[in-house]
Amino acid sequence: MDSEKSGEATIAIQEPKTDPKGKGIAGAPAPSVATTKTIRQQPRGGWKKGIAIFDFVLRLCAIATGLAAASLMGTTEQTLPFFTQFFQFHAEYNDLPTFMFFVFANGIASGYLILSLPFSIVCIVRPHAVGPRLFLVIFDTVVMALTIAAASAAAAIVYLAHNGNSDANWNAICQQFTDFCQQSSTAVVASFITSAMFVLLIVLSAFALRT
Amino acid sequence: MDSEKSGEATIAIQEPKTDPKGKGIAGAPAPSVATTKTIRQQPRGGWKKGIAIFDFVLRLCAIATGLAAASLMGTTEQTLPFFTQFFQFHAEYNDLPTFMFFVFANGIASGYLILSLPFSIVCIVRPHAVGPRLFLVIFDTVVMALTIAAASAAAAIVYLAHNGNSDANWNAICQQFTDFCQQSSTAVVASFITSAMFVLLIVLSAFALRT
Repeated sequence: MDSEKSGEATIAIQEPKTDPKGKGIAGAPAPSVATTKTIRQQPRGGWKKGIAIFDFVLRLCAIATGLAAASLMGTTEQTLPFFTQFFQFHAEYNDLPTFMFFVFANGIASGYLILSLPFSIVCIVRPHAVGPRLFLVIFDTVVMALTIAAASAAAAIVYLAHNGNSDANWNAICQQFTDFCQQSSTAVVASFITSAMFVLLIVLSAFALRT
Repeated sequence: MDSEKSGEATIAIQEPKTDPKGKGIAGAPAPSVATTKTIRQQPRGGWKKGIAIFDFVLRLCAIATGLAAASLMGTTEQTLPFFTQFFQFHAEYNDLPTFMFFVFANGIASGYLILSLPFSIVCIVRPHAVGPRLFLVIFDTVVMALTIAAASAAAAIVYLAHNGNSDANWNAICQQFTDFCQQSSTAVVASFITSAMFVLLIVLSAFALRT
């Protein structure tokens, strides 16, 4: 399958010349003088291999940022050393369901990225293999949707925690929980970087699928 | 370009038989008895055309849901007929920055989908054209990221409006603004449907790019 696609085979066939003396029998194929076959192989796998290697490196970076996002959000907690008008003095990621979803989604994304590495290696070894590439595009798209959903939902909550909303009477809790907010904001940024890498991975795969 | 790719041309060349009587001159091409060329055309554009038509229909549906999401969220407002302990008696989508982003993002997505229709038509007419298909994949991925980000950010806020958060001392405003919350929830659902259609569009395009 790969050898068929590895080069553009150009078959030049010299057409059989008809006998000028008209000895050919009508209906029978004309006898040929010469039949030459020229097969030129044009290697085209180079840039596909380059894309596959870049895909692999990008996946490693995305694993790093995904794990960083999940662990940063998962470990964020803060206990205030003083009393305020709020009845909450301890903040943890699992106080907010959105942050729990964030840790879950980024963990799933990192796990998927680690499992996708063998497929990425297959794409490096066999740059023209369509199956693993298609598998990666489909799952990349689904996991990208999950990651970006988690990142933007957490971003909406972090924005609210920073700025509050006077119309809804929601207070800006970051005035008290500064460290908690800073760490969760960093986690959101890391998750958005992971999402951007997923977008790049999908676009790269689309280019690699192109023939 | 299309005509080259529209079918797999199988050229079967009957090899020239050497003269059994050994009259052929050494070095000169052996005279052939018969040379037959059989060109079989296997149409393979059918399923690609099918994908392109489904892509077009899906885009029309996504325009409908995207516009529905933007207009539902953009028109949601409610004025309470009674006094409560809250100082806010009028709720509109632009009270919450996340909802403004939601309307903006869904409007952008709908506009992009309308502009992408001609490219989708080109893909129906020329199922093997790679350029428009690649263009659609890249922009679909970017706009999908925008749509899903808007949908999930709004979902996080709508969830908060419905349930509140006692740890952060954020009240559930939906106990008062029931119509406002119901309409914005419907808009979020419509936006998630649009996002799911985008995922399907990208997967379909990946299959169409495959050769």
